Amino acid sequence: MKDLLTSGFNELQTEMMFSDRIADVPRSFIREILKVAISPDIISFAGGLPNRTLFPVEELKQSAIKVFDTMGRDALQYSNSEGYLPLRQTISNYYLNKHHLKVDTENILITSGSQQGLDLLGKVLINQGDEVVIEEPGYLGAIQALSLFRPVFRPVPLRDDGIDCNILEEIVTGPGPKMMYTVPVFQNPSGITYSPETRKSVVQIMAKKNCYIVEDNPYIDLCFEDKISESFYAYLPERTILLGTFSKTTVPGFRLGWIVAPDKLMNKLIIAKQAADLHTNVFTQMLTWQYLSDFDNDAHIRKIISVYGRQRDAMVEAIKAYFPSDVKYTHPKGGMFLWMELPRNFSSLELFNIAIQKQVAFVPGDPFYTVKRASYPTLRLNFSCSDEETIDEGIRRLGEAVRELGTRI
Amino acid sequence: MKDLLTSGFNELQTEMMFSDRIADVPRSFIREILKVAISPDIISFAGGLPNRTLFPVEELKQSAIKVFDTMGRDALQYSNSEGYLPLRQTISNYYLNKHHLKVDTENILITSGSQQGLDLLGKVLINQGDEVVIEEPGYLGAIQALSLFRPVFRPVPLRDDGIDCNILEEIVTGPGPKMMYTVPVFQNPSGITYSPETRKSVVQIMAKKNCYIVEDNPYIDLCFEDKISESFYAYLPERTILLGTFSKTTVPGFRLGWIVAPDKLMNKLIIAKQAADLHTNVFTQMLTWQYLSDFDNDAHIRKIISVYGRQRDAMVEAIKAYFPSDVKYTHPKGGMFLWMELPRNFSSLELFNIAIQKQVAFVPGDPFYTVKRASYPTLRLNFSCSDEETIDEGIRRLGEAVRELGTRI
Repeated sequence: MKDLLTSGFNELQTEMMFSDRIADVPRSFIREILKVAISPDIISFAGGLPNRTLFPVEELKQSAIKVFDTMGRDALQYSNSEGYLPLRQTISNYYLNKHHLKVDTENILITSGSQQGLDLLGKVLINQGDEVVIEEPGYLGAIQALSLFRPVFRPVPLRDDGIDCNILEEIVTGPGPKMMYTVPVFQNPSGITYSPETRKSVVQIMAKKNCYIVEDNPYIDLCFEDKISESFYAYLPERTILLGTFSKTTVPGFRLGWIVAPDKLMNKLIIAKQAADLHTNVFTQMLTWQYLSDFDNDAHIRKIISVYGRQRDAMVEAIKAYFPSDVKYTHPKGGMFLWMELPRNFSSLELFNIAIQKQVAFVPGDPFYTVKRASYPTLRLNFSCSDEETIDEGIRRLGEAVRELGTRI
Repeated sequence: MKDLLTSGFNELQTEMMFSDRIADVPRSFIREILKVAISPDIISFAGGLPNRTLFPVEELKQSAIKVFDTMGRDALQYSNSEGYLPLRQTISNYYLNKHHLKVDTENILITSGSQQGLDLLGKVLINQGDEVVIEEPGYLGAIQALSLFRPVFRPVPLRDDGIDCNILEEIVTGPGPKMMYTVPVFQNPSGITYSPETRKSVVQIMAKKNCYIVEDNPYIDLCFEDKISESFYAYLPERTILLGTFSKTTVPGFRLGWIVAPDKLMNKLIIAKQAADLHTNVFTQMLTWQYLSDFDNDAHIRKIISVYGRQRDAMVEAIKAYFPSDVKYTHPKGGMFLWMELPRNFSSLELFNIAIQKQVAFVPGDPFYTVKRASYPTLRLNFSCSDEETIDEGIRRLGEAVRELGTRI
């Protein structure tokens, strides 16, 4: 048989084996940047990670022991595709108690992170060429996940109070889009939050359209100021799909999120979920349920809010102190990110190269746009992972880098 | 805003929202059957579950505690898409030591069960209309996962010694298929294993074709007789994709599997993995690595083999004792399933209805075929989940049901 050993396909043959759809999917830009920013000397505002020092390690350990002791064999066996029922009930209660939304357990599907929710929605809803409204700048994980299904993205600019409703209204005339993807609270990457007025305009525009609103709320409970409990679901429950996650309020390593969807769509999502991975890790579903039952996660969230809030303050103060006055930036009232806009003729990719020499990293705005061009003058800064002193020093370096770039232009 | 509350889309509107691809995906037949078979009075050979009484609960608990104590924060944070490096090294060592295959760590991607491997391969390789060779009967999870990408299935019948190579050769002429999906050892649903001669014929047929062989081996280590270490990968490493899983040899609840693929394909798979769920649950990746490092999983596998082997014997003996002699069945040398062929004019769906009245369940053959017809005279029996006494009683009831069906025809 030795003579049958082959060196494999040649270059062209290999390329021809790949599907058309995979060519459309951008590799995660952030992933590449994080490789550069991995040196311990670099102050990184590039990541999008929760602060690991706040993880409730001991509480989760106790919960894990309890799951092994009381329901170990159930937690280790195959399970149903919808997810662990008590956890879905906990999520239903969460919506009612925290956000005054009535969501039935049967309309909740547990997913492997809310990222998987995007994949399942793409599978079930999007035909090649279907239009998808997305905020500009928009969440790059959504751009990546949905790209696989070859939609036409219709980006709508964000303003300080949410999506630009005049442009949205133009876009949804005619046959219009099938899906609008939005992160209306403490948006990634911009940190902005929709005002109640913008919410209402969106509802009025979308009320009669054959278009689902996908409302992704990973950050909604990380609010430093007034609590936010607005949702498109309150007005358009049959047209709104909610995505949620435990990644930001408990831990991300378990990859545990959920989708809320109306009955018929839920049936299709369950089929897609079966095909994707049968079900989400049931041991960590039970473990998370046990943790939420036995411990005060609200107190834990208050701790996160307090730390992130101080770090947000430190970042805003440092920007005021160290940056030229023609640099614009958002003032997020929660979440993990702040968005910065340099003067028009600046390139954030060029800034990145200068900044890395000064040992500070961020994410250039480019991957958050569906319309590609040479470079954008925007950048995303993460404030959840660095303490106040580090933020001050990092922003000082970044301010220097901005000024240096300015002298070159 | 109250006047904007809508009752949602009407029936037709809702149907029109769904993608074309989701209409092609069969809902899991087994899932529906398991709902019928859930009563504790029913003896069920319908499932495909490992035997929960054998799960190493205490060992996994100790491993979990160690992970929390020694690397808790890493185990709870976001991680990389490829998977936990030490676990991938463990898998690489497994291939070398158990199956004499050299697989580099970089060519191993951790997936959320091997089911996700199928989803990622469908995404990366299959354009609508591409041909996919599949065994007939074939693994229904593969049929389900790949259907989403709208291939044309080219089923090739299984014989006692593997796929029918004459038919395979006819099918792969011309532009031919892009992928051949096979479970060559203790196949699901048939329990059959490819003979070395069939393997060699397949290699000869496929050596020069632009077609990947996807070799899915969930059961290979559950061998009751001679150890099997043949692999298409040994002959055609650049054309072979391996799928593996911890579900059958450790526990399924963690949803932990892997893909082995050549470099360029691996790059694409990693992009698809990022888009699908960022990465697989890193806590249970570390926990599984810790367990495999600290405990003797080979001894654990020997225990599984001993139990399943006795149960296979009990099932074969009971079939001999209770069934009419014109019923054919396979003699699996490992794995979890046995396949039965009734006389041609029997319908296993009709048999199912009689059997349920006699409190015994199985999976009718239908979902394992890509060509749909009214009914097939075949069925799958699982022997991993019932003890020998229960198997004897269940097969006795099923034999009665077969005889009763015979009198009606």
